[in-house]
Amino acid sequence: MEQKYRQGGFTLPGEAGYEKLTLELAKKWGADVIRDSDGTKLSPEIVEAGYSIYSTICIIRQHNAFAAAHPDSQQQSFLCSDPVVATGDTLVIRPMDGYFTEQFELNDTPDALEFWQVWDRTANAEVPRSQWAYADGVVTIEGCMPWHEYTVSFLCWRIWEEINMYNHTTNNWTTEHLRQLDPRHPAAWEYLQQWLEDWCVANPATNVVRLTSLFYNFVWIFGEDMRNRSRFVDWASYDFTVSPAALRAFEAEYGYALTAEDFINKGKLQVTHMPPTKAKRDYMAFIQKFVAEKAKALVDIIHKHGKKAYVFYDDSWVGMEPYGPHFTSIGFDGLIKCVFSGFECRLCANVDVPTHELRFHPYLFPVGLGGLPTFSEGGNPARDALLYWRSVRRALLRQPVDRIGLGGYLSLTLPFPEFNDTMENMAIEFRRIRELHEHGAPLTAPFKVAVLHTWGSLRSWTLSGHFHETDRHSLIHINEALSGLPVDVRYISFEDVENGALADVDVVINAGRAGDAWSGGDAWKSDKLVAELTRFVHEGGTFIGVGEPSAVEGYHTFFRMANVLGVDKDTGARVCHGKWAFDVAEAPITLVAEVLAAEPNLYLTDGKATVLHAADGVPQMTMNRFGKGCGVYMSQFRVTAESTRMLLELLLHVNGVAADSLYLSDTAQVETAYFPQDDVLVLANRAEEPVDCVVHTPDGDKAWRLEALETKIVGK
Amino acid sequence: MEQKYRQGGFTLPGEAGYEKLTLELAKKWGADVIRDSDGTKLSPEIVEAGYSIYSTICIIRQHNAFAAAHPDSQQQSFLCSDPVVATGDTLVIRPMDGYFTEQFELNDTPDALEFWQVWDRTANAEVPRSQWAYADGVVTIEGCMPWHEYTVSFLCWRIWEEINMYNHTTNNWTTEHLRQLDPRHPAAWEYLQQWLEDWCVANPATNVVRLTSLFYNFVWIFGEDMRNRSRFVDWASYDFTVSPAALRAFEAEYGYALTAEDFINKGKLQVTHMPPTKAKRDYMAFIQKFVAEKAKALVDIIHKHGKKAYVFYDDSWVGMEPYGPHFTSIGFDGLIKCVFSGFECRLCANVDVPTHELRFHPYLFPVGLGGLPTFSEGGNPARDALLYWRSVRRALLRQPVDRIGLGGYLSLTLPFPEFNDTMENMAIEFRRIRELHEHGAPLTAPFKVAVLHTWGSLRSWTLSGHFHETDRHSLIHINEALSGLPVDVRYISFEDVENGALADVDVVINAGRAGDAWSGGDAWKSDKLVAELTRFVHEGGTFIGVGEPSAVEGYHTFFRMANVLGVDKDTGARVCHGKWAFDVAEAPITLVAEVLAAEPNLYLTDGKATVLHAADGVPQMTMNRFGKGCGVYMSQFRVTAESTRMLLELLLHVNGVAADSLYLSDTAQVETAYFPQDDVLVLANRAEEPVDCVVHTPDGDKAWRLEALETKIVGK
Repeated sequence: MEQKYRQGGFTLPGEAGYEKLTLELAKKWGADVIRDSDGTKLSPEIVEAGYSIYSTICIIRQHNAFAAAHPDSQQQSFLCSDPVVATGDTLVIRPMDGYFTEQFELNDTPDALEFWQVWDRTANAEVPRSQWAYADGVVTIEGCMPWHEYTVSFLCWRIWEEINMYNHTTNNWTTEHLRQLDPRHPAAWEYLQQWLEDWCVANPATNVVRLTSLFYNFVWIFGEDMRNRSRFVDWASYDFTVSPAALRAFEAEYGYALTAEDFINKGKLQVTHMPPTKAKRDYMAFIQKFVAEKAKALVDIIHKHGKKAYVFYDDSWVGMEPYGPHFTSIGFDGLIKCVFSGFECRLCANVDVPTHELRFHPYLFPVGLGGLPTFSEGGNPARDALLYWRSVRRALLRQPVDRIGLGGYLSLTLPFPEFNDTMENMAIEFRRIRELHEHGAPLTAPFKVAVLHTWGSLRSWTLSGHFHETDRHSLIHINEALSGLPVDVRYISFEDVENGALADVDVVINAGRAGDAWSGGDAWKSDKLVAELTRFVHEGGTFIGVGEPSAVEGYHTFFRMANVLGVDKDTGARVCHGKWAFDVAEAPITLVAEVLAAEPNLYLTDGKATVLHAADGVPQMTMNRFGKGCGVYMSQFRVTAESTRMLLELLLHVNGVAADSLYLSDTAQVETAYFPQDDVLVLANRAEEPVDCVVHTPDGDKAWRLEALETKIVGK
Repeated sequence: MEQKYRQGGFTLPGEAGYEKLTLELAKKWGADVIRDSDGTKLSPEIVEAGYSIYSTICIIRQHNAFAAAHPDSQQQSFLCSDPVVATGDTLVIRPMDGYFTEQFELNDTPDALEFWQVWDRTANAEVPRSQWAYADGVVTIEGCMPWHEYTVSFLCWRIWEEINMYNHTTNNWTTEHLRQLDPRHPAAWEYLQQWLEDWCVANPATNVVRLTSLFYNFVWIFGEDMRNRSRFVDWASYDFTVSPAALRAFEAEYGYALTAEDFINKGKLQVTHMPPTKAKRDYMAFIQKFVAEKAKALVDIIHKHGKKAYVFYDDSWVGMEPYGPHFTSIGFDGLIKCVFSGFECRLCANVDVPTHELRFHPYLFPVGLGGLPTFSEGGNPARDALLYWRSVRRALLRQPVDRIGLGGYLSLTLPFPEFNDTMENMAIEFRRIRELHEHGAPLTAPFKVAVLHTWGSLRSWTLSGHFHETDRHSLIHINEALSGLPVDVRYISFEDVENGALADVDVVINAGRAGDAWSGGDAWKSDKLVAELTRFVHEGGTFIGVGEPSAVEGYHTFFRMANVLGVDKDTGARVCHGKWAFDVAEAPITLVAEVLAAEPNLYLTDGKATVLHAADGVPQMTMNRFGKGCGVYMSQFRVTAESTRMLLELLLHVNGVAADSLYLSDTAQVETAYFPQDDVLVLANRAEEPVDCVVHTPDGDKAWRLEALETKIVGK
């Protein structure tokens, strides 16, 4: 392998006390950068070894002395008590019951109490302030309706920074609980700017300040009871940005006031998986602007000291929104994303920022996120790394990033030399693929696919968090499948469709559960949306609906696109209607029935759709010619090698594209990317065993044998 | 066996040409009555043999000459065209496309056209009359919104009586299609009364006129395409009662006009399984009053001739409503119900009428309703009869009827002497059980169970049709299980609860799918209802919820009774909420997990409910102490011997009742009924094999052995 593939684009976590190992592995893996990790500090021996140095800063954390001196500078959140049934006309509620008191502390200052609310949840009505009183952690409600349920919505201080809390509670750390400051607090903001200024002066060797991340963590609410420790977690929610000051500033800017209920939402909170209210959209825009302004001020300080500013696309990332309107104004030099999956690579690669870097898994920790051993007895980190690489590689073949890297403790790799060899090879493959992209883009199918949901491009590629956190949703499976297909993919919103986004699209995918943000919920009450998509298909487009696509109650069909799909779901009113009998047709693609559901309430609308698969006599996958176009329905989608191939074949079929024009192999296990500029074909084996395959090309078929998980790069 | 059990309470279908067989079987089965059947006529030899004679009349049918002379006297219905997409601004719809033209004929008289409607179903808006025109079977719409879907709602004549149509199309009859008259048509009504008068005069030997049934058939809409022949069937819907005359009379009486859309309901029609609109409730009341008035006039004619009037509780029964307010005013002497299941026996037995008669299955026809052979090659009618008897017997042990009988062609029994012996024995058991009830009621548990749904007592025991037509609903399984349990059962509506119906109830069961009539839909928006049920349980009652009980969107929980149940269902907004971990507890009853669902979106509300069964880590059956009472949740219920026993044990457990106090056996296969007046214990084996069991009694346990399906009657 040429030397140029042996070095560069690799960030190594250095470890004090293991200086020799650090420098050995830096050489082996071709690192050009050494970083510290959460809870570690690099030694001078490493810092002065000639590598670029990334230093990790969590800007709002590690200021406990300031927080102690200014407790009102801490971050806050709205919480809602568990509902309590009134058995008489007086009711006593302790709002904090059930919440983790090491994370939350009641904010019962007059400033905060103004925003507290008491609700009769049975009657869906706020209880007037005259009927309740607060004292010593207890709310007493008078004049209750007996047998109704009541809740208290309240503000609380968040007294333990959530990532620190997670590490403590997961890894049994015993160090001091770290607090977090709210940059909206004027004194805290002055302090943080000065702190960063001082830090830059004190760390001349640092080339890149790696912010982890900005100000507000994703929402993570712990409960007191170990049986319900993680009460709520949403990677893209904004509840942790709130404070009386924020609420007042919002009212001043938007001309209307938000209340606790705008956040609490009957105790359900405002999850990313559901369509947002107008208030939530406004509030997100308000916070995004604030975060961008404050972040820019910090980046300016870093730049002033001749350092670069990279930001981590996780943890305290809320409001930063790399796909939002303000991100580029911040001026970051790089974005770093930790990746388990292919969609996360695309999520990073697609952001408008100079440098994109992936933090690979497994993290150099004894156990992984799921609690299984990685770098400890019983672990097999080399295999773990290869299986993550299998997902990442296919995404990198479609769209490059600039850098990769690791995090954690290098010393843990000592008993696992196979891991170190694996990583060495992986880094070489990464650089080789990156170079191919530098010469020219890989061959892509001549049609454009748009994924349609509420958030549109703001939530390109992702839903809310990692794959395993959102794997009940068909859409994350589709995103993951798409992340490595030779297909042009974009994410559009319902407003985009109404504003002409379909002009440049051949296939629209809508995949979700009725009422959620991915299906769309009330957005489908727009006749204009329905008409535009109907036109689009009638004139030759394809609409692929998965699960409960375009579903909303109140119309003659539950799926608003039922006419195009030829299939609909009965929500109860059609139990007396006869159902069209059908034969299951031979599929024009390689069908993978096991990724579909066995949904009992589907039915053919007019009997004309072709049924590709049925379960218990009920259609689960259909194709329906509609005008010059086509509607395709799948009751569910789950990503596997085979179903990914099925999705690709489906896209090719409806667009009339032949497999050989794209250099596709004859098996789902081997994916390919052809780079015409270099005339190079990359074959990637997904199987953990050798696979023989034939690649169809415009110049005829060619046979290949790939070893387990092998990447084969052939051509010039 | 005493002679008194060998004769009486049995209605035999006589068959002309088989006079000897008729009289032989009349003796063998102990018939006291001989009847004719649909399409048969008794011979003088039979009529004069000394038996009472039932004669079958379908009053609105068999008047084709009158119908031909007065085509406007035929019955009608609203239908809705299939939706059609507009690709431009003009659209042509042929309303009848897809409907069975042998059943329906457009009613395009000016009188009817006034009620036609054209709808833009995409926009949910009626198209103004100025934009559409009708001519020659075609509606032309101008000024369409391109890509919207349109439908035409129209009136049509029903030119083939539906039961006759069914028999023709099922049994390949070739006789003339029978039409049906609408008694609302003044000339038809005069004609029908005179016809009945004449008939009574011409048939002096008839003792009982058996009406099959009254005027309006349950709704049964056939399609043209054999792939969707039965487009719609609902046993308790009222669509077939409609006509311009009825609509005008309604408006005069109720002060507001109904439109086609009140019936068409976006093409979904108004099914019994969904909560009715106010308009539907009013219209039902309007029709019920009309039907009762007309029926009473006919019964008066029959009575004037010294005959009795029995009515069949099926076919053209719509509007008669034996559980409605007008039924007793008609003056029927008897009610006849065909039965496959136990719940149908209770449905018949509970009606306020002098004589209750069951028509047993199998019908003496070559094939059964499901199309399988009965009295033909490959059939085993003796076994069929015993399996139906197994369901009927347990209901008869709880509540008696007065008579049983058969229908069809006696001659078909000739090759099946085992059937004739089975029937002989069954008739003896029936009379024995009936006598026990005459002496006193069987022992019943000391608590009262109320099934709670939209229709309340109007739909006691039934949903809409036979078991196999409604078996997707958990409630019919519960009704069937309850039909033979030693438990006091009543059916109550949500209004009943608000009006104090729980004063005399110990257990409330609510079982249905969100939004349907059985769960309740919007009825659960009543805070008063929720509070009253909450009070009821808190003070000691039990609420059993099955499927999606008390479910309605818009509140802090999806199940409004989630506080009592301790379990709720996430409809999408709680995907980010942590779920309470739990251990599955040992059940205090004999759990039958296989009748539960594997519903993935259930969760414990406060972690306190006891989980009796979980699927894939999700609770499917729970018990939750609430105040002095209890909430029980089951994700589904399917009736089997074992699950019936589970339901009984559950009811005993929550009410603290011991098995021995009720003379229960130790096995689900053997059910018992103890008649204290006679000190008689009846044991009924449900198994098709011998079973040994022990019966727990207040005087100790006693062992028994029962043969396959045996009924053992022991004691005095």
